Amino acid sequence: MPTLSINQRIAALRQAMQQADLDAYIVLSSDPHQSEIVAPRYQSRAWISGFTGSAGTAVVTRDHAGLWTDSRYFLQADIELADSEFQLHRKERAYLHEYESWLLEHLPAGSRVGVDGQLIGARDFKNLKKSLQEGGLELMGDHDLIEAAWEDRPALPGRPVRDFGVEWCGETRSKRIVRVQRQLEEHDWAATLLVALDDIAWLFNLRGTDVEFNPLFYAYAVVAQDSSHLFISPGQVSPALKADLVMAGIQLHDYTELLSFIQDAPFEGPIHYDPRQLSAQFADQIPESLTQTGDSLVVPMKAIRNPVEIKRTRQAMVKDGVALLRLFRWLEGKLEREEYPTEVDVAEQLAQFRSEQKAYQGESFAAIAGYAGNGAIVHYRPEPKTAATLRPEGIFLLDSGGQYLDGTTDITRTIALGPPTAAQKQHYTLVLKGHIALARAVFLPGTRGNQLDLLARQYLWREGLNYGHGTGHGVGFFLNVHEGPHGVSPNPSGSPSVPLEPGMVFSNEPGYYLAHHYGIRIENLVLVRQHPFSHTNQFLSLEDLTLFPMDWNLIQEDLLTMEEEKWLHDYHQTVFQRLSPHLEAEEQAWLKEKCRV
Amino acid sequence: MPTLSINQRIAALRQAMQQADLDAYIVLSSDPHQSEIVAPRYQSRAWISGFTGSAGTAVVTRDHAGLWTDSRYFLQADIELADSEFQLHRKERAYLHEYESWLLEHLPAGSRVGVDGQLIGARDFKNLKKSLQEGGLELMGDHDLIEAAWEDRPALPGRPVRDFGVEWCGETRSKRIVRVQRQLEEHDWAATLLVALDDIAWLFNLRGTDVEFNPLFYAYAVVAQDSSHLFISPGQVSPALKADLVMAGIQLHDYTELLSFIQDAPFEGPIHYDPRQLSAQFADQIPESLTQTGDSLVVPMKAIRNPVEIKRTRQAMVKDGVALLRLFRWLEGKLEREEYPTEVDVAEQLAQFRSEQKAYQGESFAAIAGYAGNGAIVHYRPEPKTAATLRPEGIFLLDSGGQYLDGTTDITRTIALGPPTAAQKQHYTLVLKGHIALARAVFLPGTRGNQLDLLARQYLWREGLNYGHGTGHGVGFFLNVHEGPHGVSPNPSGSPSVPLEPGMVFSNEPGYYLAHHYGIRIENLVLVRQHPFSHTNQFLSLEDLTLFPMDWNLIQEDLLTMEEEKWLHDYHQTVFQRLSPHLEAEEQAWLKEKCRV
Repeated sequence: MPTLSINQRIAALRQAMQQADLDAYIVLSSDPHQSEIVAPRYQSRAWISGFTGSAGTAVVTRDHAGLWTDSRYFLQADIELADSEFQLHRKERAYLHEYESWLLEHLPAGSRVGVDGQLIGARDFKNLKKSLQEGGLELMGDHDLIEAAWEDRPALPGRPVRDFGVEWCGETRSKRIVRVQRQLEEHDWAATLLVALDDIAWLFNLRGTDVEFNPLFYAYAVVAQDSSHLFISPGQVSPALKADLVMAGIQLHDYTELLSFIQDAPFEGPIHYDPRQLSAQFADQIPESLTQTGDSLVVPMKAIRNPVEIKRTRQAMVKDGVALLRLFRWLEGKLEREEYPTEVDVAEQLAQFRSEQKAYQGESFAAIAGYAGNGAIVHYRPEPKTAATLRPEGIFLLDSGGQYLDGTTDITRTIALGPPTAAQKQHYTLVLKGHIALARAVFLPGTRGNQLDLLARQYLWREGLNYGHGTGHGVGFFLNVHEGPHGVSPNPSGSPSVPLEPGMVFSNEPGYYLAHHYGIRIENLVLVRQHPFSHTNQFLSLEDLTLFPMDWNLIQEDLLTMEEEKWLHDYHQTVFQRLSPHLEAEEQAWLKEKCRV
Repeated sequence: MPTLSINQRIAALRQAMQQADLDAYIVLSSDPHQSEIVAPRYQSRAWISGFTGSAGTAVVTRDHAGLWTDSRYFLQADIELADSEFQLHRKERAYLHEYESWLLEHLPAGSRVGVDGQLIGARDFKNLKKSLQEGGLELMGDHDLIEAAWEDRPALPGRPVRDFGVEWCGETRSKRIVRVQRQLEEHDWAATLLVALDDIAWLFNLRGTDVEFNPLFYAYAVVAQDSSHLFISPGQVSPALKADLVMAGIQLHDYTELLSFIQDAPFEGPIHYDPRQLSAQFADQIPESLTQTGDSLVVPMKAIRNPVEIKRTRQAMVKDGVALLRLFRWLEGKLEREEYPTEVDVAEQLAQFRSEQKAYQGESFAAIAGYAGNGAIVHYRPEPKTAATLRPEGIFLLDSGGQYLDGTTDITRTIALGPPTAAQKQHYTLVLKGHIALARAVFLPGTRGNQLDLLARQYLWREGLNYGHGTGHGVGFFLNVHEGPHGVSPNPSGSPSVPLEPGMVFSNEPGYYLAHHYGIRIENLVLVRQHPFSHTNQFLSLEDLTLFPMDWNLIQEDLLTMEEEKWLHDYHQTVFQRLSPHLEAEEQAWLKEKCRV
């Protein structure tokens, strides 16, 4: 069967719209769990439009096919939409639904707009419905028109899930479930409905491979005051694992049974859920009188690592450091032998070195290997056709991470492949000073990431420079590489407004980008801990988890204070001590030189 | 006529309560404008209870008289309430109405609680009413029982107001009113109702002396799209000033006529007001359909100084520096001659030196002259009976300010009266490093005070130390010494969440307090300005306005970085250059030595 062209897909959708009596249809790229990464089944917007960027929404009316995306993707969208009816709408603000105002402006009053209510969060749907209603448009959430139009739409992956034992995560699933149940009792709620796939994986000590990079599986869960329920495709659970789950008192249901379970709800008290996560379709089934919306109960539990998770995380960092060391030695050798690798070669070789480490499970995201001007593209992902070839000159930025049973890593190092310019050294050192200032922060409980952010930016700001991304994001434990609730950026609300607590892990990654020339980013993961003052236990500080040397060739040492120099030497001492027992003699010598110890 | 005892006052209030059929009455210490400082007429809580602290609420029931205040005032309240029926309720959180839960716990359902609806903001009243209602209590806002009980209650001051000409403030009242009217047009609102006394003083270019320290007068104002109205007691406006106001198109009404003006409201469109400021009584008179609540339109205008105000402010700082210089020289002489002054003597002498400066109008707040352990009491105010006597040893903290026609000042210096200890020097230097870090900040527009706060705290935090107050507050221009909307503290909301803009002035005043031993605070006022980078105009930074040397005897120089040393020397150079033309030769020599220039 030949694949339909984009215009044929649009026509198929329009036919479905006509049957459903809809004047417009919104095609999202979300899944029913509002996941950051979705299974191929849910890549509907890419299917309908041909635009494959990570962010974008398509809207099809009887006489228009529009694709909304933000400035990161203008170039890509121009190319990918060129051969179809789709028109690119250039979003001015990445996080606004600008198609909303377009609909209000272009559709006559009384028009009916459709969206798949399974794929939009209850709160988003409510807001969208209200704002369209105010403009005389009706929003319908009960149509999955893509299902009708997309003939060979992929099924859900349904791959086997694995037990993630207490030896890895330090706490049995029973105990975790009881901790949720205790919260239900405190609030006097009957049950909580869990939607986010990382919440479910964490709570039940299970991991999967249903999507790229994040070790997740498609499931829902309901925890009630005296029962717990996992909704998962039966084929994903082996008999042995099933026995384990049942022994822990967990009732298993088919993934598709959540709807009927809610409809027959045995609960008489309030049912709690996060309205940003639960789909409009499901939220609709819970009587308003029983609805209790709020943040997920699991998120704050998951964010605080226990001692086993912390110990494991430290082990993962050693493995990651060893793999990176091998990669950078390999790269040095290649350049010396004038065998110039491409960015893709480097990324593949790094994945290879990581995969030689025990308990490695895969990359935690697609490596950003950005040489020269490509390093200045913050979300760059090299492609075989267009990847740059590295030469013994200029700056190379490598941002990558691994999934190990011991945890999730995320590290960025920037190195000079030839003699750096004075400006490159100055920029690198300003970024490094910010990195060190955040790493050395001592702060009171209650302090939020949006207060700490400035520490990392201050030296760049003082020179009239800045970077256009946050300073850090929370990171999961063998889970999502972007995992809140906390984060570090200037934003007054959202994750940077969450107070940092002992046991939280996040990235410290200031940068500087000179468009078309080079990108600089220095990223370590850090752990929030009680600061070891002798006279008070009231303060918190950060432990550096990531173990890999900085490139001294890029450091302008006279810009560093004595305290910064000391931090650098102490850090490199630690890197050498922690990594060297796992290295061959030649590697040790290489590391010793890089660490200047 | 003898003054009533506190218990007699309680009895008089209970009689009035019985007549009004109320089971409890809440006695506030606010005025109808929610002013920080109120006229004697509105010091009702002090009158009923005898407790004179700046924060507190009294609640009288048929069988209980309670006074709620926070930990700053426990000692004072214990003493002042000792001879009456009043019981002290120790508040755990300064900004919660804890009497609310007490009422809910102690009054039987159906009880009627009264409060003077003229003295409580519309939003506060609504919230209080709702929460009492949920507990079965009824809140009535239409009783001023204090008026009945307090026989010799003072009248409103009604003192003459003065024209504050354009040569001082740089913009005519007509222009300011037009700027408000332009906002009304933009929003399509019929009128805005102004309640805050500083908003009204600023908008109409008038100043008064109705309360202590702040140059305010009791008035209301209404600005409509094509008219403006000032409600003020006619006796406060001279015929010449009245002519000026009328010529500017301003309609004058009696202060008491606002209510009838609202009731007869000629406006058909929305009427805007700030529901934290407008009293419940007045807000009640505006039909809900016409109510448009929001922040005052004047606050953001007033916060941005124009070039004339900035130039004047710089002049006021010179005057203040000269007065402080004379005070500290006087103090040195006294100590040398072993004529030891008390804290009160110092405060009075400082007011005297300030009063010798041109255009001086009075103190901007009661000077905090805290010697040794008294310096550790953040809101200390020396009293003749209990003031400490200064000796040539230990640490002395002096926080004071003046009102000049050129502007409002607020400065704190901490000096050693004898050889300081190593710990004192370390603490002073950590505070100074924080002060310098904030003073040197360069930041992007959109940055808020709650992001900058950490700059001032970081060095103390790194030693496990902190201070229990904000780092800075907005300051008015010959207006209130505490004047937002902006501020600097770790709080996520309120004034520290307001982005800083060029033209704003605020205090930079980190501190450190060792209870019973000493207090350290270093305070300058700073002006937000565009940072003079040559390559970009996108950044903001701060100009130090306050001009007075730091005490080098308290600085541990090896804790300073080269950049901090440079800032200190540059600052002292500026202080010397700006002050010396206004000094006698001997004073110049003294300053030269103190500035080390």
